[in-house]
Amino acid sequence: MTRAESAPFHQAEHHFADDARNAIYQAIFSRRDVRSQFLPEPVSDEVLARILTAAHFAPSVGYMQPWNFVLIRDAVVKSRIHAAFAEANAEAADMFEGENREIYRELKLEGIREAPINILVTCDRDRAGPVVIGRTHIKAMDIYSSVCAVQNLWLAARSEGLGVGWVSIFHQHALREILALPARIIPIAYLCLGHVSHFYEKPELEAVGWRPRLPLEDLVFFEQWEQREGGGSTPLKAALREAQALAIKNRSFHS
Amino acid sequence: MTRAESAPFHQAEHHFADDARNAIYQAIFSRRDVRSQFLPEPVSDEVLARILTAAHFAPSVGYMQPWNFVLIRDAVVKSRIHAAFAEANAEAADMFEGENREIYRELKLEGIREAPINILVTCDRDRAGPVVIGRTHIKAMDIYSSVCAVQNLWLAARSEGLGVGWVSIFHQHALREILALPARIIPIAYLCLGHVSHFYEKPELEAVGWRPRLPLEDLVFFEQWEQREGGGSTPLKAALREAQALAIKNRSFHS
Repeated sequence: MTRAESAPFHQAEHHFADDARNAIYQAIFSRRDVRSQFLPEPVSDEVLARILTAAHFAPSVGYMQPWNFVLIRDAVVKSRIHAAFAEANAEAADMFEGENREIYRELKLEGIREAPINILVTCDRDRAGPVVIGRTHIKAMDIYSSVCAVQNLWLAARSEGLGVGWVSIFHQHALREILALPARIIPIAYLCLGHVSHFYEKPELEAVGWRPRLPLEDLVFFEQWEQREGGGSTPLKAALREAQALAIKNRSFHS
Repeated sequence: MTRAESAPFHQAEHHFADDARNAIYQAIFSRRDVRSQFLPEPVSDEVLARILTAAHFAPSVGYMQPWNFVLIRDAVVKSRIHAAFAEANAEAADMFEGENREIYRELKLEGIREAPINILVTCDRDRAGPVVIGRTHIKAMDIYSSVCAVQNLWLAARSEGLGVGWVSIFHQHALREILALPARIIPIAYLCLGHVSHFYEKPELEAVGWRPRLPLEDLVFFEQWEQREGGGSTPLKAALREAQALAIKNRSFHS
Protein backbone atom coordinates (compact mmCIF):
# COMPACT_ATOMS: atom_id res chain seq x y z
CA MET A 1 0.00 0.00 0.00
CA THR A 2 1.23 3.44 -0.81
CA ARG A 3 0.16 6.99 -0.13
CA ALA A 4 -1.26 7.13 -3.65
CA GLU A 5 -4.26 5.11 -2.47
CA SER A 6 -5.38 8.02 -0.32
CA ALA A 7 -7.67 9.87 -2.71
CA PRO A 8 -7.45 13.65 -2.68
CA PHE A 9 -10.32 15.62 -1.25
CA HIS A 10 -11.99 17.15 -4.27
CA GLN A 11 -13.36 20.62 -3.92
CA ALA A 12 -13.32 23.61 -6.22
CA GLU A 13 -11.40 25.73 -3.74
CA HIS A 14 -9.64 24.77 -0.56
CA HIS A 15 -10.62 27.81 1.46
CA PHE A 16 -14.03 28.07 3.08
CA ALA A 17 -16.66 30.64 2.04
CA ASP A 18 -16.36 33.88 4.02
CA ASP A 19 -19.30 33.14 6.32
CA ALA A 20 -18.04 29.65 7.10
CA ARG A 21 -14.53 30.92 7.77
CA ASN A 22 -15.88 33.61 10.05
CA ALA A 23 -17.87 31.03 11.98
CA ILE A 24 -14.61 29.29 12.87
CA TYR A 25 -13.09 32.56 14.07
CA GLN A 26 -16.25 33.41 15.99
CA ALA A 27 -16.12 30.11 17.87
CA ILE A 28 -12.44 30.70 18.67
CA PHE A 29 -12.92 34.31 19.83
CA SER A 30 -16.12 33.79 21.81
CA ARG A 31 -15.09 30.53 23.53
CA ARG A 32 -14.87 30.98 27.31
CA ASP A 33 -13.76 28.92 30.31
CA VAL A 34 -17.11 28.61 32.09
CA ARG A 35 -17.39 28.14 35.84
CA SER A 36 -20.45 29.87 37.27
CA GLN A 37 -22.97 30.07 34.43
CA PHE A 38 -24.11 26.44 34.10
CA LEU A 39 -27.83 25.65 33.86
CA PRO A 40 -29.32 22.33 35.03
CA GLU A 41 -30.98 21.66 31.63
CA PRO A 42 -29.66 18.31 30.32
CA VAL A 43 -27.46 17.97 27.24
CA SER A 44 -29.07 15.74 24.60
CA ASP A 45 -27.37 12.55 23.47
CA GLU A 46 -27.26 13.91 19.90
CA VAL A 47 -25.37 17.07 20.89
CA LEU A 48 -23.07 15.15 23.24
CA ALA A 49 -22.31 12.67 20.44
CA ARG A 50 -21.46 15.51 18.04
CA ILE A 51 -18.99 17.21 20.36
CA LEU A 52 -17.34 13.90 21.32
CA THR A 53 -16.99 13.15 17.61
CA ALA A 54 -15.29 16.53 17.17
CA ALA A 55 -12.83 15.51 19.89
CA HIS A 56 -12.25 12.12 18.26
CA PHE A 57 -11.29 13.77 14.95
CA ALA A 58 -8.37 15.64 16.53
CA PRO A 59 -4.89 15.08 15.11
CA SER A 60 -2.95 12.33 16.86
CA VAL A 61 0.67 11.30 16.64
CA GLY A 62 1.06 8.11 14.61
CA TYR A 63 -2.78 8.03 14.43
CA MET A 64 -2.75 6.73 18.03
CA GLN A 65 -6.10 8.30 18.94
CA PRO A 66 -4.88 7.91 22.54
CA TRP A 67 -7.93 9.48 24.16
CA ASN A 68 -10.83 8.12 26.17
CA PHE A 69 -13.78 10.04 27.51
CA VAL A 70 -15.11 9.23 30.97
CA LEU A 71 -18.57 10.80 31.31
CA ILE A 72 -19.59 11.67 34.86
CA ARG A 73 -23.25 12.42 35.56
CA ASP A 74 -23.71 10.72 38.94
CA ALA A 75 -24.08 13.20 41.83
CA VAL A 76 -22.13 10.97 44.20
CA VAL A 77 -19.13 10.74 41.87
CA LYS A 78 -19.31 14.49 41.23
CA SER A 79 -19.28 15.21 44.95
CA ARG A 80 -16.16 13.05 45.41
CA ILE A 81 -14.47 14.95 42.60
CA HIS A 82 -15.57 18.23 44.13
CA ALA A 83 -14.09 17.24 47.50
CA ALA A 84 -10.78 16.50 45.76
CA PHE A 85 -10.93 19.92 44.12
CA ALA A 86 -11.74 21.64 47.45
CA GLU A 87 -8.74 20.07 49.16
CA ALA A 88 -6.33 21.12 46.42
CA ASN A 89 -7.92 24.55 46.12
CA ALA A 90 -7.38 25.32 49.80
CA GLU A 91 -3.69 24.45 49.35
CA ALA A 92 -3.58 26.61 46.23
CA ALA A 93 -5.04 29.68 47.98
CA ASP A 94 -2.24 29.52 50.56
CA MET A 95 0.36 29.79 47.78
CA PHE A 96 -0.78 33.33 46.94
CA GLU A 97 0.03 36.35 49.08
CA GLY A 98 -1.73 39.57 50.17
CA GLU A 99 -4.38 40.99 47.86
CA ASN A 100 -3.92 38.16 45.36
CA ARG A 101 -4.92 35.62 48.01
CA GLU A 102 -8.14 37.55 48.61
CA ILE A 103 -8.90 37.77 44.90
CA TYR A 104 -8.10 34.08 44.51
CA ARG A 105 -10.56 33.12 47.23
CA GLU A 106 -13.33 35.13 45.53
CA LEU A 107 -12.87 33.42 42.18
CA LYS A 108 -15.15 30.51 41.34
CA LEU A 109 -12.83 28.07 39.62
CA GLU A 110 -15.10 25.11 38.83
CA GLY A 111 -18.68 24.10 38.08
CA ILE A 112 -18.35 20.39 38.90
CA ARG A 113 -21.71 19.94 40.65
CA GLU A 114 -23.71 22.47 38.63
CA ALA A 115 -22.71 21.25 35.17
CA PRO A 116 -24.95 18.35 34.10
CA ILE A 117 -22.02 16.46 32.56
CA ASN A 118 -18.37 16.26 33.51
CA ILE A 119 -15.93 14.66 31.06
CA LEU A 120 -12.45 13.41 31.85
CA VAL A 121 -10.31 13.32 28.70
CA THR A 122 -7.39 10.91 29.12
CA CYS A 123 -4.28 9.71 27.29
CA ASP A 124 -3.47 6.00 26.98
CA ARG A 125 0.29 5.90 26.60
CA ASP A 126 0.24 2.31 25.34
CA ARG A 127 -2.54 2.72 22.76
CA ALA A 128 -0.36 1.85 19.78
CA GLY A 129 2.50 -0.27 21.12
CA PRO A 130 6.00 0.73 22.14
CA VAL A 131 7.19 2.42 18.92
CA VAL A 132 4.91 5.08 17.44
CA ILE A 133 5.50 7.08 14.23
CA GLY A 134 6.30 10.66 15.19
CA ARG A 135 6.76 9.83 18.87
CA THR A 136 10.19 8.25 18.67
CA HIS A 137 11.98 11.35 19.97
CA ILE A 138 9.37 13.44 21.82
CA LYS A 139 7.46 11.10 24.11
CA ALA A 140 4.89 13.71 25.14
CA MET A 141 3.39 13.83 21.64
CA ASP A 142 0.57 11.45 22.69
CA ILE A 143 -0.36 13.80 25.53
CA TYR A 144 -0.40 16.70 23.07
CA SER A 145 -2.80 14.71 20.88
CA SER A 146 -5.27 14.39 23.76
CA VAL A 147 -5.01 18.14 24.38
CA CYS A 148 -5.89 18.78 20.72
CA ALA A 149 -9.00 16.65 21.29
CA VAL A 150 -9.93 18.89 24.23
CA GLN A 151 -9.70 22.01 22.08
CA ASN A 152 -11.81 20.47 19.30
CA LEU A 153 -14.43 19.52 21.89
CA TRP A 154 -14.40 23.03 23.36
CA LEU A 155 -14.94 24.78 20.01
CA ALA A 156 -17.66 22.33 18.97
CA ALA A 157 -19.40 22.87 22.31
CA ARG A 158 -19.25 26.65 21.85
CA SER A 159 -20.95 26.36 18.46
CA GLU A 160 -23.67 24.22 20.10
CA GLY A 161 -24.19 26.96 22.70
CA LEU A 162 -22.64 24.85 25.47
CA GLY A 163 -20.12 26.08 28.00
CA VAL A 164 -16.98 24.16 28.94
CA GLY A 165 -14.79 24.73 31.98
CA TRP A 166 -11.40 23.03 32.45
CA VAL A 167 -10.76 22.25 36.13
CA SER A 168 -7.06 21.70 36.82
CA ILE A 169 -6.78 22.16 40.59
CA PHE A 170 -6.47 18.53 41.63
CA HIS A 171 -3.89 16.14 42.87
CA GLN A 172 -3.73 13.72 39.98
CA HIS A 173 -3.73 10.72 42.33
CA ALA A 174 -7.16 11.81 43.60
CA LEU A 175 -8.62 11.71 40.08
CA ARG A 176 -6.95 8.34 39.51
CA GLU A 177 -8.46 6.87 42.64
CA ILE A 178 -12.00 8.21 42.22
CA LEU A 179 -12.22 7.23 38.54
CA ALA A 180 -10.19 3.99 38.80
CA LEU A 181 -7.62 4.91 36.17
CA PRO A 182 -4.88 2.33 35.43
CA ALA A 183 -1.27 3.50 35.68
CA ARG A 184 -0.80 3.81 31.90
CA ILE A 185 -3.69 6.30 31.65
CA ILE A 186 -2.91 9.99 32.17
CA PRO A 187 -5.82 12.23 33.17
CA ILE A 188 -5.41 15.20 30.82
CA ALA A 189 -8.44 17.45 31.26
CA TYR A 190 -11.36 17.40 33.68
CA LEU A 191 -14.10 19.30 31.86
CA CYS A 192 -17.47 20.59 33.07
CA LEU A 193 -20.04 20.83 30.27
CA GLY A 194 -23.53 22.23 30.03
CA HIS A 195 -25.91 24.87 28.81
CA VAL A 196 -25.17 28.31 30.23
CA SER A 197 -27.06 31.43 31.22
CA HIS A 198 -24.54 33.56 29.30
CA PHE A 199 -20.97 33.75 28.07
CA TYR A 200 -18.74 36.50 29.40
CA GLU A 201 -17.51 39.10 26.97
CA LYS A 202 -13.91 38.75 28.13
CA PRO A 203 -11.97 35.99 29.87
CA GLU A 204 -12.76 36.35 33.58
CA LEU A 205 -9.14 36.75 34.68
CA GLU A 206 -8.80 39.63 32.24
CA ALA A 207 -12.08 41.19 33.43
CA VAL A 208 -11.05 41.12 37.11
CA GLY A 209 -7.68 42.67 36.27
CA TRP A 210 -5.57 39.62 37.16
CA ARG A 211 -3.65 39.68 33.86
CA PRO A 212 -4.14 41.61 30.59
CA ARG A 213 -4.45 40.20 27.08
CA LEU A 214 -0.90 40.34 25.69
CA PRO A 215 -0.24 42.13 22.35
CA LEU A 216 0.26 39.37 19.79
CA GLU A 217 2.83 41.41 17.87
CA ASP A 218 5.18 41.14 20.89
CA LEU A 219 4.99 37.33 20.79
CA VAL A 220 6.11 36.83 17.20
CA PHE A 221 9.79 36.33 16.32
CA PHE A 222 11.57 35.82 13.01
CA GLU A 223 14.05 33.04 12.18
CA GLN A 224 15.17 32.71 15.80
CA TRP A 225 14.23 33.51 19.39
CA GLU A 226 13.81 37.24 20.13
CA GLN A 227 14.70 38.28 16.62
CA ARG A 228 12.09 40.90 15.83
CA GLU A 229 13.13 42.08 12.39
CA GLY A 230 12.72 39.86 9.37
CA GLY A 231 11.43 39.68 5.84
CA GLY A 232 8.04 41.37 5.75
CA SER A 233 7.91 41.87 9.49
CA THR A 234 6.67 45.46 9.48
CA PRO A 235 3.54 44.94 7.35
CA LEU A 236 2.94 41.73 9.30
CA LYS A 237 3.19 43.64 12.58
CA ALA A 238 0.48 46.04 11.41
CA ALA A 239 -1.66 43.11 10.27
CA LEU A 240 -1.25 41.41 13.67
CA ARG A 241 -2.32 44.57 15.50
CA GLU A 242 -5.36 44.97 13.28
CA ALA A 243 -6.37 41.30 13.54
CA GLN A 244 -6.14 41.32 17.35
CA ALA A 245 -8.21 44.52 17.55
CA LEU A 246 -10.92 43.00 15.32
CA ALA A 247 -10.94 39.75 17.29
CA ILE A 248 -11.59 41.71 20.49
CA LYS A 249 -14.09 44.14 18.98
CA ASN A 250 -16.14 41.95 16.63
CA ARG A 251 -15.19 38.42 17.73
CA SER A 252 -14.72 37.64 14.07
CA PHE A 253 -13.07 39.03 10.95
CA HIS A 254 -16.34 40.00 9.26
CA SER A 255 -15.60 42.93 6.99
CA MET B 1 -12.55 44.01 41.58
CA THR B 2 -15.10 41.24 41.26
CA ARG B 3 -16.35 38.97 38.57
CA ALA B 4 -19.43 41.17 38.26
CA GLU B 5 -17.37 43.65 36.25
CA SER B 6 -17.11 41.14 33.44
CA ALA B 7 -20.16 41.98 31.34
CA PRO B 8 -22.09 39.06 29.86
CA PHE B 9 -21.91 38.44 26.15
CA HIS B 10 -25.33 39.46 24.88
CA GLN B 11 -26.82 37.42 22.11
CA ALA B 12 -30.30 36.17 21.44
CA GLU B 13 -29.25 32.53 21.51
CA HIS B 14 -26.01 30.94 22.55
CA HIS B 15 -25.83 28.32 19.86
CA PHE B 16 -24.65 29.17 16.38
CA ALA B 17 -26.91 29.03 13.32
CA ASP B 18 -26.86 25.60 11.63
CA ASP B 19 -24.58 26.68 8.78
CA ALA B 20 -22.10 28.31 11.13
CA ARG B 21 -22.07 25.29 13.43
CA ASN B 22 -21.54 22.98 10.49
CA ALA B 23 -18.60 25.10 9.35
CA ILE B 24 -16.85 24.35 12.65
CA TYR B 25 -17.46 20.62 12.21
CA GLN B 26 -16.34 20.77 8.60
CA ALA B 27 -13.03 22.37 9.61
CA ILE B 28 -12.54 19.72 12.29
CA PHE B 29 -13.40 16.76 10.02
CA SER B 30 -11.50 17.94 6.92
CA ARG B 31 -8.33 19.11 8.73
CA ARG B 32 -5.31 17.04 7.69
CA ASP B 33 -1.66 16.74 8.68
CA VAL B 34 -0.04 17.90 5.44
CA ARG B 35 3.40 16.79 4.36
CA SER B 36 3.68 16.44 0.60
CA GLN B 37 1.10 18.81 -0.88
CA PHE B 38 2.63 22.23 -0.21
CA LEU B 39 2.73 24.83 -3.01
CA PRO B 40 5.39 27.56 -3.19
CA GLU B 41 2.76 30.37 -3.40
CA PRO B 42 3.38 32.75 -0.46
CA VAL B 43 0.95 33.20 2.44
CA SER B 44 -0.23 36.80 2.71
CA ASP B 45 0.46 38.82 5.86
CA GLU B 46 -3.30 39.26 6.38
CA VAL B 47 -4.00 35.53 6.37
CA LEU B 48 -0.96 34.78 8.52
CA ALA B 49 -2.07 37.45 11.01
CA ARG B 50 -5.56 35.90 11.19
CA ILE B 51 -4.37 32.41 11.95
CA LEU B 52 -1.83 33.61 14.52
CA THR B 53 -4.63 35.59 16.18
CA ALA B 54 -6.68 32.38 16.31
CA ALA B 55 -3.76 30.73 18.12
CA HIS B 56 -3.42 33.66 20.52
CA PHE B 57 -7.08 33.35 21.56
CA ALA B 58 -6.62 29.80 22.83
CA PRO B 59 -7.47 29.04 26.45
CA SER B 60 -4.52 29.37 28.82
CA VAL B 61 -4.08 28.39 32.43
CA GLY B 62 -4.19 31.45 34.68
CA TYR B 63 -4.42 33.51 31.47
CA MET B 64 -0.66 32.94 31.06
CA GLN B 65 -0.75 33.10 27.25
CA PRO B 66 2.57 31.23 27.47
CA TRP B 67 3.10 30.91 23.73
CA ASN B 68 5.46 32.55 21.25
CA PHE B 69 5.55 32.04 17.50
CA VAL B 70 8.92 31.84 15.76
CA LEU B 71 8.33 32.27 12.01
CA ILE B 72 10.91 30.64 9.78
CA ARG B 73 11.05 31.64 6.12
CA ASP B 74 14.80 31.70 5.51
CA ALA B 75 16.00 28.80 3.33
CA VAL B 76 19.24 28.47 5.31
CA VAL B 77 17.42 28.10 8.63
CA LYS B 78 14.95 25.66 7.04
CA SER B 79 17.80 23.52 5.74
CA ARG B 80 19.37 23.36 9.21
CA ILE B 81 16.02 22.27 10.64
CA HIS B 82 15.64 19.73 7.84
CA ALA B 83 19.07 18.28 8.61
CA ALA B 84 18.05 17.89 12.27
CA PHE B 85 14.89 16.10 11.12
CA ALA B 86 16.84 13.81 8.76
CA GLU B 87 19.21 12.75 11.54
CA ALA B 88 16.36 11.91 13.94
CA ASN B 89 14.31 10.27 11.18
CA ALA B 90 17.12 7.85 10.29
CA GLU B 91 17.25 6.82 13.95
CA ALA B 92 13.46 6.48 13.99
CA ALA B 93 13.37 4.17 10.94
CA ASP B 94 15.74 1.79 12.70
CA MET B 95 13.29 1.44 15.59
CA PHE B 96 10.73 -0.28 13.34
CA GLU B 97 11.04 -3.85 12.14
CA GLY B 98 10.30 -5.82 8.97
CA GLU B 99 7.54 -4.55 6.72
CA ASN B 100 6.83 -1.59 9.02
CA ARG B 101 10.38 -0.32 8.51
CA GLU B 102 9.84 -0.38 4.75
CA ILE B 103 6.51 1.44 5.03
CA TYR B 104 8.07 3.95 7.42
CA ARG B 105 10.84 4.75 4.95
CA GLU B 106 8.28 5.38 2.19
CA LEU B 107 6.27 7.87 4.24
CA LYS B 108 6.99 11.54 3.74
CA LEU B 109 6.82 12.92 7.26
CA GLU B 110 7.59 16.63 6.79
CA GLY B 111 7.36 19.54 4.36
CA ILE B 112 9.97 21.77 5.99
CA ARG B 113 11.62 23.07 2.82
CA GLU B 114 8.55 23.05 0.58
CA ALA B 115 6.22 24.95 2.92
CA PRO B 116 6.71 28.70 2.53
CA ILE B 117 6.42 29.28 6.29
CA ASN B 118 7.45 27.17 9.24
CA ILE B 119 6.21 28.16 12.70
CA LEU B 120 7.60 27.00 16.01
CA VAL B 121 4.99 27.32 18.77
CA THR B 122 6.66 27.45 22.19
CA CYS B 123 5.76 27.54 25.89
CA ASP B 124 7.41 30.04 28.25
CA ARG B 125 7.22 28.34 31.64
CA ASP B 126 7.97 31.60 33.48
CA ARG B 127 5.48 33.81 31.63
CA ALA B 128 3.39 34.63 34.72
CA GLY B 129 5.70 34.19 37.71
CA PRO B 130 6.17 31.19 40.02
CA VAL B 131 2.56 30.73 41.19
CA VAL B 132 -0.14 30.54 38.51
CA ILE B 133 -3.88 30.11 39.06
CA GLY B 134 -4.88 26.63 37.95
CA ARG B 135 -1.27 25.44 37.67
CA THR B 136 -0.55 24.95 41.35
CA HIS B 137 -0.97 21.17 41.21
CA ILE B 138 -0.51 20.15 37.55
CA LYS B 139 2.61 21.90 36.27
CA ALA B 140 2.11 20.81 32.66
CA MET B 141 -1.01 22.99 32.29
CA ASP B 142 1.03 25.74 30.59
CA ILE B 143 2.26 23.24 28.00
CA TYR B 144 -1.34 22.14 27.41
CA SER B 145 -2.26 25.80 26.80
CA SER B 146 0.31 26.06 24.02
CA VAL B 147 -1.05 22.86 22.46
CA CYS B 148 -4.55 24.40 22.45
CA ALA B 149 -3.05 27.33 20.53
CA VAL B 150 -1.69 24.88 17.95
CA GLN B 151 -5.11 23.34 17.41
CA ASN B 152 -6.77 26.75 17.02
CA LEU B 153 -4.12 27.69 14.46
CA TRP B 154 -4.65 24.43 12.58
CA LEU B 155 -8.43 24.83 12.29
CA ALA B 156 -8.16 28.49 11.29
CA ALA B 157 -5.59 27.54 8.65
CA ARG B 158 -7.93 24.85 7.28
CA SER B 159 -10.72 27.38 6.89
CA GLU B 160 -8.29 29.65 5.01
CA GLY B 161 -7.45 26.77 2.65
CA LEU B 162 -3.95 26.37 4.12
CA GLY B 163 -2.35 23.09 5.07
CA VAL B 164 -0.48 22.52 8.32
CA GLY B 165 1.91 19.69 9.14
CA TRP B 166 3.24 19.03 12.65
CA VAL B 167 6.81 17.70 12.51
CA SER B 168 7.79 15.93 15.72
CA ILE B 169 10.79 13.84 14.72
CA PHE B 170 13.55 15.95 16.24
CA HIS B 171 15.91 15.89 19.14
CA GLN B 172 14.64 18.86 21.12
CA HIS B 173 18.19 20.07 21.75
CA ALA B 174 18.66 20.48 17.99
CA LEU B 175 15.63 22.80 17.74
CA ARG B 176 16.90 24.71 20.78
CA GLU B 177 20.32 25.24 19.24
CA ILE B 178 19.20 26.21 15.75
CA LEU B 179 16.51 28.62 16.99
CA ALA B 180 18.46 29.91 20.06
CA LEU B 181 15.77 29.03 22.61
CA PRO B 182 16.51 29.88 26.26
CA ALA B 183 16.22 27.06 28.81
CA ARG B 184 12.82 28.20 30.12
CA ILE B 185 11.27 27.92 26.64
CA ILE B 186 9.85 24.54 25.60
CA PRO B 187 9.50 23.91 21.85
CA ILE B 188 5.97 22.49 21.59
CA ALA B 189 5.13 22.20 17.90
CA TYR B 190 7.17 22.68 14.74
CA LEU B 191 4.58 23.43 12.05
CA CYS B 192 4.87 23.66 8.28
CA LEU B 193 2.29 26.00 6.74
CA GLY B 194 1.27 26.84 3.22
CA HIS B 195 -1.18 26.60 0.37
CA VAL B 196 -1.69 23.04 -0.85
CA SER B 197 -2.47 21.26 -4.10
CA HIS B 198 -5.15 19.21 -2.30
CA PHE B 199 -6.21 17.76 1.02
CA TYR B 200 -6.42 14.00 1.40
CA GLU B 201 -9.81 12.48 2.04
CA LYS B 202 -8.55 10.42 4.96
CA PRO B 203 -5.59 10.73 7.31
CA GLU B 204 -2.61 9.29 5.46
CA LEU B 205 -1.77 6.68 8.10
CA GLU B 206 -5.34 5.37 7.82
CA ALA B 207 -5.17 5.38 4.01
CA VAL B 208 -1.95 3.34 3.91
CA GLY B 209 -3.39 0.83 6.39
CA TRP B 210 -1.01 1.66 9.25
CA ARG B 211 -3.83 2.04 11.78
CA PRO B 212 -7.64 2.26 11.46
CA ARG B 213 -9.96 4.96 12.77
CA LEU B 214 -11.14 3.64 16.14
CA PRO B 215 -14.90 3.39 16.85
CA LEU B 216 -15.68 6.29 19.19
CA GLU B 217 -18.31 4.28 21.05
CA ASP B 218 -15.53 2.00 22.35
CA LEU B 219 -13.67 4.98 23.84
CA VAL B 220 -16.49 6.32 26.03
CA PHE B 221 -16.89 5.20 29.65
CA PHE B 222 -19.44 6.08 32.31
CA GLU B 223 -18.68 7.22 35.86
CA GLN B 224 -15.35 5.38 35.95
CA TRP B 225 -12.71 3.72 33.81
CA GLU B 226 -13.97 0.84 31.67
CA GLN B 227 -17.51 1.09 32.95
CA ARG B 228 -19.59 0.82 29.80
CA GLU B 229 -23.10 0.86 31.14
CA GLY B 230 -24.57 4.01 32.60
CA GLY B 231 -27.52 6.36 32.54
CA GLY B 232 -28.56 6.87 28.93
CA SER B 233 -25.62 4.95 27.56
CA THR B 234 -27.45 2.90 24.97
CA PRO B 235 -29.13 5.77 23.07
CA LEU B 236 -25.83 7.65 23.39
CA LYS B 237 -23.98 4.71 21.89
CA ALA B 238 -26.27 4.79 18.85
CA ALA B 239 -25.82 8.55 18.58
CA LEU B 240 -22.01 8.16 18.71
CA ARG B 241 -22.08 5.57 15.93
CA GLU B 242 -24.27 7.76 13.76
CA ALA B 243 -22.20 10.90 14.39
CA GLN B 244 -18.93 9.15 13.53
CA ALA B 245 -20.44 7.73 10.32
CA LEU B 246 -21.65 11.20 9.25
CA ALA B 247 -18.30 12.79 10.09
CA ILE B 248 -16.56 10.30 7.80
CA LYS B 249 -19.16 10.39 5.02
CA ASN B 250 -20.12 14.08 4.85
CA ARG B 251 -17.35 15.76 6.88
CA SER B 252 -20.11 17.67 8.64
CA PHE B 253 -23.45 17.14 10.32
CA HIS B 254 -25.48 18.82 7.58
CA SER B 255 -28.91 17.24 7.57
